[in-house]
Amino acid sequence: MVTLSTPALEAARLMADQNLPGLIVLDEDGKPFTILPGTQVLRLAVPQYCQDDPALARVVDEQHADLFLRALGDKTVRELLPDRPRELPVVDGDATVLEIAAVMARMRSPVVAVMAQDRMTGAVTLDNLLDRMLAS
Amino acid sequence: MVTLSTPALEAARLMADQNLPGLIVLDEDGKPFTILPGTQVLRLAVPQYCQDDPALARVVDEQHADLFLRALGDKTVRELLPDRPRELPVVDGDATVLEIAAVMARMRSPVVAVMAQDRMTGAVTLDNLLDRMLAS
Repeated sequence: MVTLSTPALEAARLMADQNLPGLIVLDEDGKPFTILPGTQVLRLAVPQYCQDDPALARVVDEQHADLFLRALGDKTVRELLPDRPRELPVVDGDATVLEIAAVMARMRSPVVAVMAQDRMTGAVTLDNLLDRMLAS
Repeated sequence: MVTLSTPALEAARLMADQNLPGLIVLDEDGKPFTILPGTQVLRLAVPQYCQDDPALARVVDEQHADLFLRALGDKTVRELLPDRPRELPVVDGDATVLEIAAVMARMRSPVVAVMAQDRMTGAVTLDNLLDRMLAS
């Protein structure tokens, strides 16, 4: 979990260090503002022209890519966020494993937030879910 | 990596045991037939009506969900695969980190296959990539 004012580079580092499949971005009230699959967190760091045509990224050499990432450090998550999706991958506390799997599959999100009465009470990752599905 | 004839349940278990963010499905020639993000591997196991409306999944209780998963065990990946995408998240061996990031972001795939002359020579996961991007 990060907030809108977390530096983008710190958010990427958190995801890397904790091997998270995505990030939940909280607003000022501690509610999920948006939930980003890891691949979409990459969007924060990759220039649009490279996303449109990855072959163009090849002309940027490794060292320059590092410099680019470091330059990101001053920007917050809020400054780089894409448009907020209409719907977020959230479930109630009493959601079944099948329900959570269906939400992850439909919304293509490997992380979902668990909500109770408009407050976030937890999160489930794809790994958590698979472990629970396959435990029996 | 799994093949088209791998049992679907075994594929799910491999992903869970090795904490993989997705699966590369190889064809008979050992080339990637398709590459599935983890959330789309879930599609193999979640009935279509639940994907369309996750709330419907709630009426299936936990125990029934387990039974459902076990019933999957006889089916192979091939029998459950969705339509093959027109484009796969693959890169050449000389791809830069930025190029791989751009492919992951654009194709929403936390795993990409590395190809050399029509043969797969490796794979890069989102975790691998972030570690490499942030190492410096």
